[in-house]
Amino acid sequence: MAEDTSAQQIENYLAAADEAFAGWSQTPAAGRADVLDIVADALDAAAGQLIPVAMKETNLPEARLAGELKRTTFQLRLFGQVLRDGTWYDARIDQADAQWPMGAPRPDLRRTHIPLGPILVFSASNFPFAFSVAGGDTASALAGGNPVIVKAHSGHLELSALTGEVVTQALADAGAPAGLFHVVFGTEAGKTALLDSRVKGSGFTGSIPGGRALFDLANSREEPIPFYGELGSNNPVFVTKQAASLRGAEIAAEFVGSFTLGAGQFCTKPGTLFIPRNSGMREALAAAALPPGAKLLNSRIQSGYVEVLQALSGHASTEVLVQGSDPLADPPSPTLLVTGIEDLLADPRALQAECFGPTALVVEYDDEEQLVAAAKTFEGQLTATLQAEESDEVAQLVRIAASKAGRVLWNQWPTGVSVTYAQQHGGPYPATTVASSTSVGTAAIARFVRPVAFQNFPQHLLPAELQDGNPLSNPRLVDGRTVS
Amino acid sequence: MAEDTSAQQIENYLAAADEAFAGWSQTPAAGRADVLDIVADALDAAAGQLIPVAMKETNLPEARLAGELKRTTFQLRLFGQVLRDGTWYDARIDQADAQWPMGAPRPDLRRTHIPLGPILVFSASNFPFAFSVAGGDTASALAGGNPVIVKAHSGHLELSALTGEVVTQALADAGAPAGLFHVVFGTEAGKTALLDSRVKGSGFTGSIPGGRALFDLANSREEPIPFYGELGSNNPVFVTKQAASLRGAEIAAEFVGSFTLGAGQFCTKPGTLFIPRNSGMREALAAAALPPGAKLLNSRIQSGYVEVLQALSGHASTEVLVQGSDPLADPPSPTLLVTGIEDLLADPRALQAECFGPTALVVEYDDEEQLVAAAKTFEGQLTATLQAEESDEVAQLVRIAASKAGRVLWNQWPTGVSVTYAQQHGGPYPATTVASSTSVGTAAIARFVRPVAFQNFPQHLLPAELQDGNPLSNPRLVDGRTVS
Repeated sequence: MAEDTSAQQIENYLAAADEAFAGWSQTPAAGRADVLDIVADALDAAAGQLIPVAMKETNLPEARLAGELKRTTFQLRLFGQVLRDGTWYDARIDQADAQWPMGAPRPDLRRTHIPLGPILVFSASNFPFAFSVAGGDTASALAGGNPVIVKAHSGHLELSALTGEVVTQALADAGAPAGLFHVVFGTEAGKTALLDSRVKGSGFTGSIPGGRALFDLANSREEPIPFYGELGSNNPVFVTKQAASLRGAEIAAEFVGSFTLGAGQFCTKPGTLFIPRNSGMREALAAAALPPGAKLLNSRIQSGYVEVLQALSGHASTEVLVQGSDPLADPPSPTLLVTGIEDLLADPRALQAECFGPTALVVEYDDEEQLVAAAKTFEGQLTATLQAEESDEVAQLVRIAASKAGRVLWNQWPTGVSVTYAQQHGGPYPATTVASSTSVGTAAIARFVRPVAFQNFPQHLLPAELQDGNPLSNPRLVDGRTVS
Repeated sequence: MAEDTSAQQIENYLAAADEAFAGWSQTPAAGRADVLDIVADALDAAAGQLIPVAMKETNLPEARLAGELKRTTFQLRLFGQVLRDGTWYDARIDQADAQWPMGAPRPDLRRTHIPLGPILVFSASNFPFAFSVAGGDTASALAGGNPVIVKAHSGHLELSALTGEVVTQALADAGAPAGLFHVVFGTEAGKTALLDSRVKGSGFTGSIPGGRALFDLANSREEPIPFYGELGSNNPVFVTKQAASLRGAEIAAEFVGSFTLGAGQFCTKPGTLFIPRNSGMREALAAAALPPGAKLLNSRIQSGYVEVLQALSGHASTEVLVQGSDPLADPPSPTLLVTGIEDLLADPRALQAECFGPTALVVEYDDEEQLVAAAKTFEGQLTATLQAEESDEVAQLVRIAASKAGRVLWNQWPTGVSVTYAQQHGGPYPATTVASSTSVGTAAIARFVRPVAFQNFPQHLLPAELQDGNPLSNPRLVDGRTVS
């Protein structure tokens, strides 16, 4: 078991990270990409050591963890590719223009993005690789040119220490600046680092209360810093009458697969399924073969799950639709509750609470107009899903869903978040603390860089991505026109 | 004099803005552009009414106000052009890819940006047009598809009411949704709106204490909202030995012109000038012909200016280099103070305080290494400027300047902020509350939109900017490659 990091050690790490910033931020992007590749290779090579430790600490099965590690190293390499492509600079060049119609000559202005400084990453319980020590926040912060300090999650301390050693050794092998990367342990270590003036930004994945407390702390600083927290989401799914009629049994089976995937411990788990009354879907769900109970990540998650499940099932309007033999045991059998849409509309906050684990709520409706009304009652979400047919009149429902969520799906399921260029894993509060950001996909790098414009500069003092002749061949916006 | 807006009226405005959101956000971008053009035309047509009121309320001269109004209407039209170009969508399309090397098939994912909802704009004292009722925050929020509520600045209430009438009438003439735009009066009105759950974002231009208080309020909400505050900046200028030797007298004259422009009431006023000792520049500055005193914007600005000037000139390390006959009178004659770089390094916070008005501090140095040390002591800035020669070895100074400021200038002056595609008017705290944003230039629209991804959607339910065949001809990132 890793010991809590001492105050002196934290001070040493912060000083080292601050010192490493100059060298890393000045390493050309392509050089940083090479380093990320080397880190990815080292993690892949260490899979045989890492995965057994992860299995022991998180109760997650080997295949899932192997897949997650693959996703994690793919992510590091994808950020490397983005660094080489140069799209992330959002480079803009305005040439001097004496006739600029603003009323005064336009100077030569060139805008790019630069890193912020040391970034503090709070890692997640449910993704011991992909949202932890070497996960998406770390990858995007390093890619952007920032040192990283990771606060290990208490649910997988040994894995965090081991992953940290692999990453630190790989960074050294790759010739990255010493002190670029550190893992710290303990709640106090995280708070101390968050309040330190050398830390310039933070990423977080976890619960609403925990994330909000840290968000408030980040904003309480003399110099507030951006705090990118991904907190909680219910991820509603809306099934139209046509879809229920044409594919009801199939949708029911896929829904059960999605809400019980990983024992329901995904931030994109569909927590609410809206189905038409008297469509046969209720019966299909009631008859569904639920998977057996699986141990949750740790005892804190287990007790938190039982508490929320008891609140939901104890709500006056809900009843059990189907559940395994031991819904409150450890491991817990999955549970499907059911209620009517009028009840959901009457008490949305209670019935839309996120239940982290293998429980979901089925809501029966009569009229598709009610889906629009129900969608409007949700707080900010990571995802919202429609199961519908192309001839359905759902434009308004899509619009409301998009106004509530960062990602809207059509006839697919929200679990399984692909790491791509167009991915958006974010959403209005409380899904995240910064709705304009994503924590998955290549746009995640934007969280840890900021724009700077150079006015009237000589070529040799400009960053390469802004120089005449475009030596890095990155796409640019020149006089307002995209040049690729 | 406009009366404070009553609680009932604020409620009516918020309800109307919330109601208008659906219609305005669904108005195609090109349609919103047409509306912005009509607003710009109406403001230009009303110049003869607006400018005399502005002169009376702000003490600013006619030519300055006419130029500012022209800049304001240009800005509205430029955002219209950006809406038509479609660069602001940052549209991204990932085509489905069964072989995606993450380890799972990639779905069809398409990402664009959508508006946030009603935006609250706090207008500025020093730009009664360009950062006020119809200024940059309003233009970018409307362009993004958001209703706007402007809190009028107490320094120009009559102008705010009149501008509001012109904008409201123009919006009605253009067929924009009713209730899209409102002006409110009074400190309480601003706070009430900021705390209302229907308001989804805010822009602010003003002082550090005022902006910080509102930033804290915005973050205290159950649903925190983005608060884009532009607060304060000292805007240091570094003159190298070569530049002083070759162009010392010219730089001195231009500096005097810049720090006294608009009676020193610009957020980009250069507040500190670093000059080499024994270069002749001190003598050139001491002999400079300072302009006569000009009345400041209002009595609050006047008394605040006198207070900061007294603190600066009362500091043990400063002395007066040159000043007019009535430095503390109303109107105040300009003042140049001088100190040594060792003194600045010993007490940077006191000597780098922003002095809003016609005062600046000259700092003499011996060695260019000291410029790097001094640059490191600054807090976040809107701008930092080098007056230097191409053969100077200033790469490190440029790097430090960029790490502190949103815009770095070479042999030009920070006053006069051009409205362009590559402009960056922002910077680390306390220059702004969100260093990743700009309040001037076309990227300002990004403050009031957020990304949303559509997964596996049928064509007819996708926003036009994401549809196959690219009907709007906007640039897009397709499978990670920029396609213009």
